[in-house]
Amino acid sequence: MEVIKTVLELKSWVSEMKSCNKRISCVPTMGYLHEGHLSLIKRAKEIGDVVVTTIFVNPTQFAPTEDLDKYPKNILRDTKLAEESGADVLFLPEAGEMYPDGFSTSIELGGVTKLFEGEIRPTHFSGVATVVAKLLLLTEADSAVFGQKDYQQTLVVKKLVRELNIPCRIVVAPIVREKDGLAMSSRNVYLEKDDRNLALGISKSLFRTKSLVESGEFHAKSIEQYFRTQLLDAGITEIDYATAVDAENLTTPEYFKKGDTVVLLVVARVGGVRLLDNAILDIP
Amino acid sequence: MEVIKTVLELKSWVSEMKSCNKRISCVPTMGYLHEGHLSLIKRAKEIGDVVVTTIFVNPTQFAPTEDLDKYPKNILRDTKLAEESGADVLFLPEAGEMYPDGFSTSIELGGVTKLFEGEIRPTHFSGVATVVAKLLLLTEADSAVFGQKDYQQTLVVKKLVRELNIPCRIVVAPIVREKDGLAMSSRNVYLEKDDRNLALGISKSLFRTKSLVESGEFHAKSIEQYFRTQLLDAGITEIDYATAVDAENLTTPEYFKKGDTVVLLVVARVGGVRLLDNAILDIP
Repeated sequence: MEVIKTVLELKSWVSEMKSCNKRISCVPTMGYLHEGHLSLIKRAKEIGDVVVTTIFVNPTQFAPTEDLDKYPKNILRDTKLAEESGADVLFLPEAGEMYPDGFSTSIELGGVTKLFEGEIRPTHFSGVATVVAKLLLLTEADSAVFGQKDYQQTLVVKKLVRELNIPCRIVVAPIVREKDGLAMSSRNVYLEKDDRNLALGISKSLFRTKSLVESGEFHAKSIEQYFRTQLLDAGITEIDYATAVDAENLTTPEYFKKGDTVVLLVVARVGGVRLLDNAILDIP
Repeated sequence: MEVIKTVLELKSWVSEMKSCNKRISCVPTMGYLHEGHLSLIKRAKEIGDVVVTTIFVNPTQFAPTEDLDKYPKNILRDTKLAEESGADVLFLPEAGEMYPDGFSTSIELGGVTKLFEGEIRPTHFSGVATVVAKLLLLTEADSAVFGQKDYQQTLVVKKLVRELNIPCRIVVAPIVREKDGLAMSSRNVYLEKDDRNLALGISKSLFRTKSLVESGEFHAKSIEQYFRTQLLDAGITEIDYATAVDAENLTTPEYFKKGDTVVLLVVARVGGVRLLDNAILDIP
């Protein structure tokens, strides 16, 4: 595996690959890799001939009050794990490579970016869209793999690629969980032992709510009430949202109906750590 | 030459070209082609193996008060001219192909987009940047050719491509002029006979101001004063701007100095028609 730190070197590697008609698959990450990320790299390797994993903790998707500076980091370990998972290139740019002096471009997507995470973090998705566009275009990726754990982000990336006509196929890979059910996240490392046990209430409440819908409850408000009750019963009190919405546009009908695809979204804070989880299901 | 009206057909043609390693060159236009456009198509044909000319009067770069609806049109003539100039494909999308239902993406570039045209037409360059990004990505163009006549637009497109890492080389081709010096423009057709004579004052003032700088006047204010006086003397009174600025960032120093590249920019209205012209020169 080649470790590349500059745009110039990356572009030269990309042209070499393109000249031998290799299909490039890209896995953009913020590093501190866990099994979830590694599953994306493995999936990318199935789709593409060569895989570029990128690690870039993108400052423009963090608000000044957020955890940019304390985002966890372990480049040596990441390098080893990326290589073992089949990455051909690890792209590790400094901020100045991505945003040189005078840089002032941003992509505003509207629509689905205004809801949920977009309401709580108003500049977040513009930062995500801009850096993802740059990474897909820099790597000239034929495909890119994103994790379902950041569900709304996968919708944003699909909208970005569709509306700007970026010639890249977006693949979403399923959530990878710890044995007990907690969705894997780089931020899990910040959970103290007691909070780690408490956090388990998130996935448990999610699975129970999923079962509720599967057993025939299609009234959106009732689903949401049940979801919140489950969380509160499990001791999860700082709930940013816990909801059942249309999987495509994140809006809530009064009742879901046959043929709908629903996503259950939850974001809650446990011991100061903001945790995301979700589950997709089809109304049978 | 193939005439293509849908994104789907265009993408299929593009993959065919890519699969035989053809270098694609793109010439985005708003139609009503004149010798200026044709020179861009010819230049594109020198750089690329195949040329896509696009004709799309992009609604998002016009403000509600502007001349979108009366923008001149002659598709039959354009088709003939594009073919004669060497285009391999003419892409003629309807607005719904470029902006399907639910479309809400825009690219904001900041910087140079805030000056001159960006001050007078605040939403213009966001519309330009978004549609140009879409056209370059749809055509997967290795290169694209733009006319120097819209000088600020060439800076905007270069910034767009550089900052989003769009893998496309931007080539700027010189202004093509009528025999008497008037810069060619699709909007010239709206000039009544007397105004057509009056309009000539724009290029004449531009050339005289260029000579002034070449003869050693480097004081920006004096150059601008001379430029405006020339225009007023020629009967051009509705001047949006007439100025001498740094060719890269469009700012004005007190004095230009050896090694600077200067652009003289002028926009004026003659008989209600907004006309643009410019000239680039190096300080020797």
